[in-house]
Amino acid sequence: MTAQTPKTYDDLKDAFQSFISRRDKDRHMNIFWETNPSKFDNGNQSLIELSGGMPHESFFPIESINLNILKEPVSNDTIAALVTKEKPAALPLARTLQYSLSEGFPPLIEFVKRFITKLNNIPLYDTNLWKVVLAGGSCDSLFKIFETCTDENSTVMVEELTFVPVVSNIINTGAKVIPLKLNLNNDDEGIDLNYMESLLSNWETGPYKHLNRPKFLYTIPTGQNPTGLTQSVEKRRKIYKLAQRFNFIILEDDPYGYLKFPKYNHENPLENPYKDDQSITSEEYIKNTLMKSYISMDTDGRVIRFETFSKIFAPGMRLSFVIMNNFFYDKFLKFQEISTRQPSGISQQIVYSTIHSMTSSNYNNDVIESWLQWIMKLACNYTERRNVMLQTLYESESFNKAQFSVVEPSAGMFIIIKVNFNEAKGDIISQMGKLFNLMDSNGVRAILGYKMAFDQEFSKDHLNFFRLTYAYADGNNQIKEAISRINKSLLEYFE
Amino acid sequence: MTAQTPKTYDDLKDAFQSFISRRDKDRHMNIFWETNPSKFDNGNQSLIELSGGMPHESFFPIESINLNILKEPVSNDTIAALVTKEKPAALPLARTLQYSLSEGFPPLIEFVKRFITKLNNIPLYDTNLWKVVLAGGSCDSLFKIFETCTDENSTVMVEELTFVPVVSNIINTGAKVIPLKLNLNNDDEGIDLNYMESLLSNWETGPYKHLNRPKFLYTIPTGQNPTGLTQSVEKRRKIYKLAQRFNFIILEDDPYGYLKFPKYNHENPLENPYKDDQSITSEEYIKNTLMKSYISMDTDGRVIRFETFSKIFAPGMRLSFVIMNNFFYDKFLKFQEISTRQPSGISQQIVYSTIHSMTSSNYNNDVIESWLQWIMKLACNYTERRNVMLQTLYESESFNKAQFSVVEPSAGMFIIIKVNFNEAKGDIISQMGKLFNLMDSNGVRAILGYKMAFDQEFSKDHLNFFRLTYAYADGNNQIKEAISRINKSLLEYFE
Ligand SMILES: Cc1ncc(COP(=O)(O)O)c(C=O)c1O
Ligand SMILES: Cc1ncc(COP(=O)(O)O)c(C=O)c1O
Repeated sequence: MTAQTPKTYDDLKDAFQSFISRRDKDRHMNIFWETNPSKFDNGNQSLIELSGGMPHESFFPIESINLNILKEPVSNDTIAALVTKEKPAALPLARTLQYSLSEGFPPLIEFVKRFITKLNNIPLYDTNLWKVVLAGGSCDSLFKIFETCTDENSTVMVEELTFVPVVSNIINTGAKVIPLKLNLNNDDEGIDLNYMESLLSNWETGPYKHLNRPKFLYTIPTGQNPTGLTQSVEKRRKIYKLAQRFNFIILEDDPYGYLKFPKYNHENPLENPYKDDQSITSEEYIKNTLMKSYISMDTDGRVIRFETFSKIFAPGMRLSFVIMNNFFYDKFLKFQEISTRQPSGISQQIVYSTIHSMTSSNYNNDVIESWLQWIMKLACNYTERRNVMLQTLYESESFNKAQFSVVEPSAGMFIIIKVNFNEAKGDIISQMGKLFNLMDSNGVRAILGYKMAFDQEFSKDHLNFFRLTYAYADGNNQIKEAISRINKSLLEYFE
Repeated sequence: MTAQTPKTYDDLKDAFQSFISRRDKDRHMNIFWETNPSKFDNGNQSLIELSGGMPHESFFPIESINLNILKEPVSNDTIAALVTKEKPAALPLARTLQYSLSEGFPPLIEFVKRFITKLNNIPLYDTNLWKVVLAGGSCDSLFKIFETCTDENSTVMVEELTFVPVVSNIINTGAKVIPLKLNLNNDDEGIDLNYMESLLSNWETGPYKHLNRPKFLYTIPTGQNPTGLTQSVEKRRKIYKLAQRFNFIILEDDPYGYLKFPKYNHENPLENPYKDDQSITSEEYIKNTLMKSYISMDTDGRVIRFETFSKIFAPGMRLSFVIMNNFFYDKFLKFQEISTRQPSGISQQIVYSTIHSMTSSNYNNDVIESWLQWIMKLACNYTERRNVMLQTLYESESFNKAQFSVVEPSAGMFIIIKVNFNEAKGDIISQMGKLFNLMDSNGVRAILGYKMAFDQEFSKDHLNFFRLTYAYADGNNQIKEAISRINKSLLEYFE
């Protein structure tokens, strides 16, 4: 296929029909209600609906909800927002507590579209040829995309260290997963381009020649889980070119993209440009701080982008969205209709009302700007936590004895430390296990890195790391205490 | 198989292994975090978790929520309930806004278990051998059960007129669906037992001999959708016996079971024992009003029961639960883990807090009793609406001209009217279409019954009905107005 910009729905269909799973053809929503608008028009009388099995709103036990919303993260200042069965008029409780559209509520989708447009996370082809759908968290979004797109005949590329639950989604469809080598150093972060290109160029003679050529790349480009790494823009451009050349789809899973940090300053570890006097404006944040996303390079319709409210709002909302071309959208929505039906209405209500209430007092009622400010303040908090953890790691006795090295993240929630084990002392997995137990008995836990390898044999040079997160700690002191416990454990281990 | 009461998990496995879908074997959740409790125990110091990618609770924008809860349906009286990051201690926002267990929050599951135990909706075998799992609405529950249990080799029996979106779920797994004849009269409501028994006894010579014997019956036993019918207890016992004899599983979908009505009194149409002086107590409601569920007869582990908060709380919660034996539970939960992960935490919070706040002022803080009272008041409202609609139908000129007949529901949200078409005037479907358009132009809409037939050819004697609901109308006057528009349309049609 020669890559080309789609002009019509049929172009999309021609280009992407072969990326739809075998099971899709058995999917059909049996709609038994009339969807055409009524022709009834009789002055002030309105149509009476005896169709839908929907309880009258007076039967919903929630009359109204008062939300107390933080003005900024970690503050005590709150803004009150009242949601009733009638208000806000664009999305009142009477609607969100009722059955509703599978794709999500139009006012929330509208907000999402304006937001991603402002942040440039939209594709380059005709805006009428892509859409946004809401789902129940990125796990749910990803599950549904793989159900839509992959089957026993599919091969999916993933980073060799990855968010392994997604591997479960892929394997559930019968598809095969193959790992891509990662560079774990801060010069050339993420997917090893040479490895990837050579794999694809020499497929027929390579290690996976028994499999079909990969039709999908699943990647976490920014603040990767577990490595914390962020792909450079050049790398992204080259990978997009590979996607065009070898005709695969890029599944861009980006829960951490907005939690983007300035580079760690070894001279001034606690430097935090979000906070300091020359505080970053939202324009600078969009232009200079955020990474260019794959979807923003997408001329062809071959990028599907996953965002979630989990990390910037709260995981318990189970709310996410997917940006994709209309052809994939239609297939995805059909599957959503016959599976979960719709994301929680009350989750949509609370996210919508919170975001729209943050604005009333600030930023000239600009809802996009006020939500950006919230996110930037979150990024500011994460920057500080990242700084504190890195500083404490670098100052530790164990680090200074070269017992471990550190990979510096510039986004997200994770830092990995690679332990310099002595291979004479036994295999890495069992040494990691011993160290984990020692850490546990010293009162600190982290993720055993090798558990996030898709294939431990393939990743045998990358099994010696722990994934630490600074997201969940109770504050800087707890981060320091945690690192001091890790330091103690390492010193004991290497004693 | 001879039916027998399971004593151990292995008994369940032996009995039900063959009811698990082919695709189940490719399902495995890649858990990368440590699930064993820490051994750390150091006085008042606690373990520090650097494992989970969970945002600290101070990053959640919702500080607290004030719920204004109706004391009873359609009232104006409210009770206030405050939910904060710390309160209620059993289930505070800090937990529900966070990632959590796939099966749902333990305090809510605990409530559900106490509730169904009180209402007798639990199986007869060892209580340690069944469990409750929360899911995102019964549509989601049903989707997940079919994914868990059925594949290309499965045959599923459904009522010939049914909630057709479920048929989409079944077909999505590759399974075959076959319809069972229904009696649409008020003497012997629901599945035609003779037809069913003869079908199963003569499978090898019957119309479906090319298919495998059915392993599942999907049924809506009370207030059936669309017919409004309720199976008698005797019928249920006989169907359960058939399930034992022919070794199939009963999938009991019961969203309407608690909205159970006293029989309509033709002498005194508005009689409403829920409301009248001799108001029904909760003991009487449980003992005499509610129907005996299939699960309450289940000695073998062969009933899976589906309940939802949609009709007794609000559909927008997208919250439901499933009661099943531990073997099915494990498979179901595994699929939930690799698909949607968990139902919305905030939905769980609001349902939990609402139910637990209704009680504080009433019923000696008995949360089960106060929730039962809410449900009974709902049932009272639905009884009244049912009565008003039936009365108006029976008093209509069109009814008195025998242009249609009525099937009286004793539960749920639906009444069907069967139109007495003159077959000389054309086929039923096109006559129904004309009448639908006439109704539409008179300002009323209902569901074209034939659209809820699984197979119009099979159900050719049952295509002439409309499904009306009294659930969504704005009140009694609107119900009356709607019926008068239907009456007008029928008179016009038959003119
Ligand atoms: C890379 C990645 N994708 C997806 C998710 C899940 O996101 P959600 O909470 O929206 O399901 C996570 C959460 O940890 C993640 O790290
Ligand atoms: C028989 C039946 N099952 C399931 C459902 C869906 O329930 P839920 O809202 O819990 O997905 C309905 C709703 O109309 C129904 O009538």
